[in-house]
Amino acid sequence: MDSRFSVDFVHRVVFTRGLFQPGNPTLVQTLRGGASGLAVFVDSGVAAAMPQLESQLNSMLSAAESAPELRAFLVVPGGEACKNDRTVVDQVLDVVNRHHLCRRSWVLAIGGGAVLDAVGYGAAVSHRGVRLIRAPSTVLAQDDAGLGVKNGINRYGKKNFEGTFAVPWAVLNDLDLLASLPDRFWCGGFSEAVKIALLRDRDFFAQIEHRADQIRKRDMSAAVPVIQRCAELHLAHIVGGGDPFESQEARPLDYGHWAAHKLEQLTEFQLSHGEAVAIGVALDTRYSAEIGWLTHGESDRVLSCLERLGLPVSHPALADTRLTEGLEEFREHLGGNLTVTLLRGIGSPSDANAMSTDAIRRSIDAIMSSSRMTTI
Amino acid sequence: MDSRFSVDFVHRVVFTRGLFQPGNPTLVQTLRGGASGLAVFVDSGVAAAMPQLESQLNSMLSAAESAPELRAFLVVPGGEACKNDRTVVDQVLDVVNRHHLCRRSWVLAIGGGAVLDAVGYGAAVSHRGVRLIRAPSTVLAQDDAGLGVKNGINRYGKKNFEGTFAVPWAVLNDLDLLASLPDRFWCGGFSEAVKIALLRDRDFFAQIEHRADQIRKRDMSAAVPVIQRCAELHLAHIVGGGDPFESQEARPLDYGHWAAHKLEQLTEFQLSHGEAVAIGVALDTRYSAEIGWLTHGESDRVLSCLERLGLPVSHPALADTRLTEGLEEFREHLGGNLTVTLLRGIGSPSDANAMSTDAIRRSIDAIMSSSRMTTI
Repeated sequence: MDSRFSVDFVHRVVFTRGLFQPGNPTLVQTLRGGASGLAVFVDSGVAAAMPQLESQLNSMLSAAESAPELRAFLVVPGGEACKNDRTVVDQVLDVVNRHHLCRRSWVLAIGGGAVLDAVGYGAAVSHRGVRLIRAPSTVLAQDDAGLGVKNGINRYGKKNFEGTFAVPWAVLNDLDLLASLPDRFWCGGFSEAVKIALLRDRDFFAQIEHRADQIRKRDMSAAVPVIQRCAELHLAHIVGGGDPFESQEARPLDYGHWAAHKLEQLTEFQLSHGEAVAIGVALDTRYSAEIGWLTHGESDRVLSCLERLGLPVSHPALADTRLTEGLEEFREHLGGNLTVTLLRGIGSPSDANAMSTDAIRRSIDAIMSSSRMTTI
Repeated sequence: MDSRFSVDFVHRVVFTRGLFQPGNPTLVQTLRGGASGLAVFVDSGVAAAMPQLESQLNSMLSAAESAPELRAFLVVPGGEACKNDRTVVDQVLDVVNRHHLCRRSWVLAIGGGAVLDAVGYGAAVSHRGVRLIRAPSTVLAQDDAGLGVKNGINRYGKKNFEGTFAVPWAVLNDLDLLASLPDRFWCGGFSEAVKIALLRDRDFFAQIEHRADQIRKRDMSAAVPVIQRCAELHLAHIVGGGDPFESQEARPLDYGHWAAHKLEQLTEFQLSHGEAVAIGVALDTRYSAEIGWLTHGESDRVLSCLERLGLPVSHPALADTRLTEGLEEFREHLGGNLTVTLLRGIGSPSDANAMSTDAIRRSIDAIMSSSRMTTI
């Protein structure tokens, strides 16, 4: 008896400003139609920048008709460290139990990608899934990580080894949250925009190139359209790409990611995900040129764009001989045959089932000798 | 940007005999098209009854062309106790890591419902889901639990508090595995058959009634069609019921389960799930008569059928005043408003949004005074 069935999902994404300011209806509207309990988990970075957040939330919810009640407000450490053990996941389970949150109750996670991942995993395994609202606080989380339909924590030193696929109830991107980001995390978010432009949209890459200096100066009029277009392309991939829960071998959006994940691990997460992706993209772009798929002119254009955005394209850890173990770990996490996306042109991706260790080495040498060696 | 999308799943269910005997192609056929690693987790009850299992598996796999390699074979304690902490879940994660199992590798869980739940949860959160094959070894697991698209462990004394929805790769029901079951677990599996007959198929109930004495005597010719029909109705509900991941409030198949889950907890799992379901079904059936939805004649027929199958319909724990907390816990796990399925006739379920404490009390008094008080 083989039975086929399908399950319908809705992915809600909103861009707004002043999400927690009185008069902004987004959050209250999103919280309609569920149960009466809400628990909030806030990234320590956001909590430090917004000391009034808990009272703002309380005022907003008590002013609204039939809004849920704020039953718990917890600050959790931001950054990848919060994914290295079960602490945050267990905190979510404990709060759900202690405050009698049911499957239709709400967990609101406010923070960077790591906090969204750890809190999201806890929410996903409580009662087999409490409703999760994400309010991403970094460029990277707003234009990429926060839109994903996955969550998880690191284990055995392997990134996202433990986790689930789960569609969030909603993703509320408050552009004002980006104002308090340190420069490093501002810049870091644009590596995923470069990545998806390289894979999907040649014109979008040209737009990023054109605005790179303004973006680096944090000119919101230049940056916001890039953040929104990047989010739109990621969302389109999830809902229209035909494989949201990654059951196929190809990982078409993981350009540069085999090296990025390994670099994060080798540097003990001193490199942020956004920075590691920039280096991984630089490597796979130079590699694409090295094997003759891409012109060296196009490869240089990509590396130069990353650098103008304030992103690193090189790092001493590239010389670590363990780097290429990242290819096997990447394959193992996904399963099946190795499938790495490379470039035949800007906006023209193509899959490879193997990478040459020699060409990887030549690419690394070229990058390390020619790059400005941006200091992290 | 609200985006709707759907994800396709395949649910494979096979009934067979001698699944691990040479010449039975079922397992090897199921293991095609994935990666080369397999880890097996066996219920201690099955391992005791089948001391040759590991070598049988090794012979079968090495005799077959391009079958995966048996990389780990672990015996885990059977029974609900294995769900009361993280031990088994962590064992699965450790094996997946240590033996480099990827997302397309295989985890085979052989055992009763509790082992399938705990091993299944570990498989579901490793790499966001390694392929899980279930070989249920009890009547209850073959006709009900093993077909479900969920997994989990108990936490905070609450059944299945932590877990995920996940569709198994395949469910292989070996009827020969039932031969070594203790009588108690043989009988226990038929409470779910009575339950689904009451909800879905009046004629099926009559068939069970007619065969009850033969089934109790473990006459396979009487029992197997009942087990298979029960499995078929459960599977039809999952794949055709429109809500496999339980996003709606109604839990149409959870007849008698609010009390069953609480009785398991109150008796510290001395009552098996099947026994607790029999008592829960007896209670909600008598309750349906008590509030005038069902005739007392029909209610008596149901209780008598359960007793003839060797199932308990009463237990001293019914008198525990904490029993009705089970209603609130049931609501909380599911979320939203309380929805309890009751009967307006055999084969005619109807939902209620509240239960009267008085009528529950009267139902319990009636059951406890009239039943034969089957001793567990």
